[in-house]
Amino acid sequence: MTDTAEFPPESERPAGWLRADQIASARLWLPILYVDAVPVRVDDSGDVVAVGLLLRVTPEGVMSRALVSGRVMFHERVRDALVRHIEKDLGPMALPQIPASPQPFTVAEYLPTPGVTPYHDPRQHAVSLAYVVPVAGDCRPQQDALDLAWITPEQACEQDVQLEMNGGQGLLLRQAMAHVGRMP
Amino acid sequence: MTDTAEFPPESERPAGWLRADQIASARLWLPILYVDAVPVRVDDSGDVVAVGLLLRVTPEGVMSRALVSGRVMFHERVRDALVRHIEKDLGPMALPQIPASPQPFTVAEYLPTPGVTPYHDPRQHAVSLAYVVPVAGDCRPQQDALDLAWITPEQACEQDVQLEMNGGQGLLLRQAMAHVGRMP
Amino acid sequence: MTDTAEFPPESERPAGWLRADQIASARLWLPILYVDAVPVRVDDSGDVVAVGLLLRVTPEGVMSRALVSGRVMFHERVRDALVRHIEKDLGPMALPQIPASPQPFTVAEYLPTPGVTPYHDPRQHAVSLAYVVPVAGDCRPQQDALDLAWITPEQACEQDVQLEMNGGQGLLLRQAMAHVGRMP
Amino acid sequence: MTDTAEFPPESERPAGWLRADQIASARLWLPILYVDAVPVRVDDSGDVVAVGLLLRVTPEGVMSRALVSGRVMFHERVRDALVRHIEKDLGPMALPQIPASPQPFTVAEYLPTPGVTPYHDPRQHAVSLAYVVPVAGDCRPQQDALDLAWITPEQACEQDVQLEMNGGQGLLLRQAMAHVGRMP
Repeated sequence: MTDTAEFPPESERPAGWLRADQIASARLWLPILYVDAVPVRVDDSGDVVAVGLLLRVTPEGVMSRALVSGRVMFHERVRDALVRHIEKDLGPMALPQIPASPQPFTVAEYLPTPGVTPYHDPRQHAVSLAYVVPVAGDCRPQQDALDLAWITPEQACEQDVQLEMNGGQGLLLRQAMAHVGRMP
Repeated sequence: MTDTAEFPPESERPAGWLRADQIASARLWLPILYVDAVPVRVDDSGDVVAVGLLLRVTPEGVMSRALVSGRVMFHERVRDALVRHIEKDLGPMALPQIPASPQPFTVAEYLPTPGVTPYHDPRQHAVSLAYVVPVAGDCRPQQDALDLAWITPEQACEQDVQLEMNGGQGLLLRQAMAHVGRMP
Repeated sequence: MTDTAEFPPESERPAGWLRADQIASARLWLPILYVDAVPVRVDDSGDVVAVGLLLRVTPEGVMSRALVSGRVMFHERVRDALVRHIEKDLGPMALPQIPASPQPFTVAEYLPTPGVTPYHDPRQHAVSLAYVVPVAGDCRPQQDALDLAWITPEQACEQDVQLEMNGGQGLLLRQAMAHVGRMP
Repeated sequence: MTDTAEFPPESERPAGWLRADQIASARLWLPILYVDAVPVRVDDSGDVVAVGLLLRVTPEGVMSRALVSGRVMFHERVRDALVRHIEKDLGPMALPQIPASPQPFTVAEYLPTPGVTPYHDPRQHAVSLAYVVPVAGDCRPQQDALDLAWITPEQACEQDVQLEMNGGQGLLLRQAMAHVGRMP
């Protein structure tokens, strides 16, 4: 649920962006709508052969892995939010195949209180529509991400990868692999 | 997208409810998370035999039909919001069978500008997770609803019923019937 | 549910194909597994902008429209059956984006007795897993199809198109449009 | 994929049942349509609190756990096959809540050759539509099952339970838990 592009300089903000104090206030008393995208490579039969995870270093200097994730803005369609966040994190040449249907494979409820659901975000109550998104093009990590690592579905479910994911995104990744029939 | 129970007297409000000015403000710059429930009667094989629609009279004196619909509150799970809104609209004895999976059959995006999506809400940008919910018990319309009418899936898709639904809920109802295999 | 490529000359048959008498016999006492694919064109946000329908002339000289449809063979994965039938009907350059998940948007049960379900196939009891499949390449109708017509989602749901589809495929097409949020 | 009720004495067979030699023959050259049901107990919010697994002893004397599973017969609807197999395995008082939608949470492809998919059935190529089915009533194991054990979703995903399941049903069970948001 890292949203590092949430607050660019005000002059660069498109319509629909909030001031930092507005979103900080809303986060105290409203669920915030998010999208989570699991970027995958597929073969000619649509079978998932690799999963892309963003590598970041936390302020504490710990390596972490993350899905593509971000907020849906006012007056933005869910599918446009998916395009925007994938472009933000994977670059403009990723060529994502956004699902034709708005039906997500699951809904992840990140609550500020741990333990109510398997997902957790200390900053807010985020409700995220989760999609598996095949990307056909060239992916380059953007912004604060160090790297984009492509791993197999089996590796994605292994303990060491799971431990490097935060807030329940490791679970969400395994749910994605279960949905595409590639959980080991 | 009628939310008649949105603002009960302040003394009766549970934690998580907003002041009217807070939600009015947020509606100007954030998508608001909703749930839509299509209440149905099913037979022993799970086949939908009837759909329940709320009958209301608009302030202009026009009869309208509506699905069960309402906002998800801060720190409330989607499944608990479904229970709360079904109880609010159908009464405490409806015995809803809330889906085990959080996967909605679709996501309805009600935008304040008509025509961007097939759904429209002049007050706000509401993003609604839509579920078909079998109810096994006794349903009594509550609050401002005049009646709860049970009609067949075929009738639900007919022109005259569709014309009495607002904001794209007629389409959402037909999508629900398509999902359960009962669109004529 | 036209399967014109079901019985090529025996010498051309790959492993897994049945003799005509074997499949004729099985059709009397077993449900036969099918796939139905709704070929679509999507924009950069994944929104469906066109639907492809095969045009055929029935033995009685009547024009009909059809989805891509066909049997799943012994030892063939569902996703490989989708690839094969799309290639069979749309040609080898269609570049279909087979869904990553095996979850169909619905299951169409074509029974030999009309009226049990909304689908009907006088020859057999076919149970078909239905998928929406974006195609990115050049589509050329193959075999017995006269043409492949691209129409809008709205046109796909209109009466005159619906009347040219058989066995409940018109309904299945509308269910597909409901699933992708493009039913008028 | 145990189908112990597949061949009752001929006099007891309803229409649609096959002779043993017919099904044995078809299994050599056709995919056979199955349903898999994961019986669950849910709370008032629809959240899964327990999973029911059948306990059996294999001919080799090994304890195994299984989902409710069985073939779809000729001219039988998928939802009626679900009712029949749940009644067969859990008894007539189980009160299953068959899903209103025919959309399965996944499709499990049990191939006679191991390794092509994660599912395996040495006897046949079975393609199974998989559903999570809440049961509200009294469940009594029938036929050859020794017991029906209710365990938590977390226990269902543990190594020792998984090892007692065959043919990939352990994976299918974990996919079901992923789908309902209850995978640990």
